[in-house]
Amino acid sequence: MGDRQGMVNAPEAVRRMMADDAASRLLGIEVLDCADGRAVARMRVREDMVNGHGIVHGGLVFALADTAFACACNSWGPVTVAAAAEIAFVTPGRIGDELRAEASVRTRFGRTGIYDITVRRGDEVVAEFRGRSSTLRNGPS
Amino acid sequence: MGDRQGMVNAPEAVRRMMADDAASRLLGIEVLDCADGRAVARMRVREDMVNGHGIVHGGLVFALADTAFACACNSWGPVTVAAAAEIAFVTPGRIGDELRAEASVRTRFGRTGIYDITVRRGDEVVAEFRGRSSTLRNGPS
Amino acid sequence: MGDRQGMVNAPEAVRRMMADDAASRLLGIEVLDCADGRAVARMRVREDMVNGHGIVHGGLVFALADTAFACACNSWGPVTVAAAAEIAFVTPGRIGDELRAEASVRTRFGRTGIYDITVRRGDEVVAEFRGRSSTLRNGPS
Amino acid sequence: MGDRQGMVNAPEAVRRMMADDAASRLLGIEVLDCADGRAVARMRVREDMVNGHGIVHGGLVFALADTAFACACNSWGPVTVAAAAEIAFVTPGRIGDELRAEASVRTRFGRTGIYDITVRRGDEVVAEFRGRSSTLRNGPS
Repeated sequence: MGDRQGMVNAPEAVRRMMADDAASRLLGIEVLDCADGRAVARMRVREDMVNGHGIVHGGLVFALADTAFACACNSWGPVTVAAAAEIAFVTPGRIGDELRAEASVRTRFGRTGIYDITVRRGDEVVAEFRGRSSTLRNGPS
Repeated sequence: MGDRQGMVNAPEAVRRMMADDAASRLLGIEVLDCADGRAVARMRVREDMVNGHGIVHGGLVFALADTAFACACNSWGPVTVAAAAEIAFVTPGRIGDELRAEASVRTRFGRTGIYDITVRRGDEVVAEFRGRSSTLRNGPS
Repeated sequence: MGDRQGMVNAPEAVRRMMADDAASRLLGIEVLDCADGRAVARMRVREDMVNGHGIVHGGLVFALADTAFACACNSWGPVTVAAAAEIAFVTPGRIGDELRAEASVRTRFGRTGIYDITVRRGDEVVAEFRGRSSTLRNGPS
Repeated sequence: MGDRQGMVNAPEAVRRMMADDAASRLLGIEVLDCADGRAVARMRVREDMVNGHGIVHGGLVFALADTAFACACNSWGPVTVAAAAEIAFVTPGRIGDELRAEASVRTRFGRTGIYDITVRRGDEVVAEFRGRSSTLRNGPS
C-alpha cells in the first residue's frame, strides 16, 4: 500500500508493517516517505469521512497522524507501538482536502520515544499531534 | 444511524448530528445512549480495522472515543467541537472485539468543556481518552 | 510534613516519601489523606506564589496536583514516579485562596497507572490534571 | 528579576510581567532571552526543590517550563495565559543541576497558540512540555 516510490525507500520493518495495515488502506492513507525517525503520509478527505458537522471526523485526522507516527517510530527497526498521544485541532478539514502528516522524532530515552506530527492542508496547519511510543521487548504480543 | 433505541432517546441535536456522520457509519460506530453530558457508543473491530501489528488501529479507537465525546458534548444543544484530546492506549483490541466507549462530562467553564471517555472490551480498559470541547458562537462555520 | 492526622493514616511508603519532600514543604503543601490509590492535599496561595498576571503560577498549581498524584500512586507501596501529566487550567487562583487537590486512580496496567487529580477552591474547579505513573523495578535510581 | 542582559532585550510586556512574577523569583528562575514567540529560562535545582525520591519535584520542572512558555506567548504583546499543558518527564534532575528551558511557538490560530518547551541539563533532555495558550480579550481579569 501507499506511494510505491516512498515505500520502496522505507525501512524493511515499516514496509512490512504497512503492507499489513488494513485500517490505513480503508482510509486511503499513503506513506510518502519514511526514514530515521521521520515519516510523511497523506490522506484525501472522502465523502464518507466527515462527521455530523460536515468536517473531517477528528478520529480520521488522528488516524492519519497516528500512521505517520507509527512509521516514524518503527523506522529504527524494533517493533514499537503508541502508548499515548494528544492532538490539538487547529482548522477543520473538508471533503476533497488532501491532508499531509509529517512526523519527526523529538527525543528517545530507554524504550520510550516522543514524536511530533503536524497535519497540514497545503501550508495551513490542520492539527498538531504529539505521540509517546513504546518499543516492545519481544515483538508484538 | 446507530442503535435505534439509543438514538430515539438522544437529544434532537445529537440525533441530527449522528444522522449526518458518515465517518462513524464507515466504522460501524453505534450510539447506544446519550443525555446530559454523557454518551455510550460501540464499535466492533473488523478485519479492515487493524494496523500492521495486527491490533486495532489506534486512530479507530480514538475515533470511537471521539464519537462518544462528540455526542456527550453536543447533548446540551449548542454546536460543540473537539478542540483537543489525549488518549492513553492500555490494552490492544483485536479483530472481533466489541469495544464500548463511555463518555461523561468532567467540568464545563465558559464555552469549554472537559470530558472523560473510557473505552472497554467487556470489563477490561482498552483506552482512556480526555477531550477538550469548544462550543461555537454561531453554529458550525 | 503535612497534616499530622492525615499522614498518620497514610501508608508507610508515603509517609517516608513526604517526610523527605523539601519542595512540598517550600510550597506549604499538606497531605490530608492518602490510601488505596487516592490522596488529598492542600496549599494556600501565598504572596510569593503569583505570576506576573497576579494569579497563582501555573507551575505551583501543577506542583500541588503532582504531590497529590505522587501520594496516590505511591500508596500501593512500590516506588512510583510521574512519567507524564497534562493539566487544564479552569479558573485562576489568587492570593489567600486555599486550593485542594483530590487524586484518584483511574486505571493501572503493568507498571503504568493513570490518575485523575482535580484542584478546587471550595466547590469551584481550578484545574483538571491527569497523570501517567511508572513504577520502578528496583526503587529510585 | 532574571538575567539583566536577557531582560533588557525582552519585549516591554514580558519585562513588566516578569518584574511582578513572585513565584519565579521564589524558585530562582531567570529569563535569559525572549523575543518573537521564543524564550529561554533557567533554574538551578536547590536543596529545597527535591521531592521525596531525592529528585527535583516535577512541579518545579513544570514551573520552569511554564515560565519560559509564559514569556514566549506574551512576547507578542497582548496578555496571554496558559489554558492547558502537558509534560513528559525524561530524566530526573538533581540538586545542583542547572536546568534550562527553551520555548518556541509551534502554531497560532485565533486567540490560541501552541508552544513547545524543552528542558535540558547540558545537552540532555530532562522534560518535554507542550502548552496551549489563550490570549485574553481585555487584559487579565
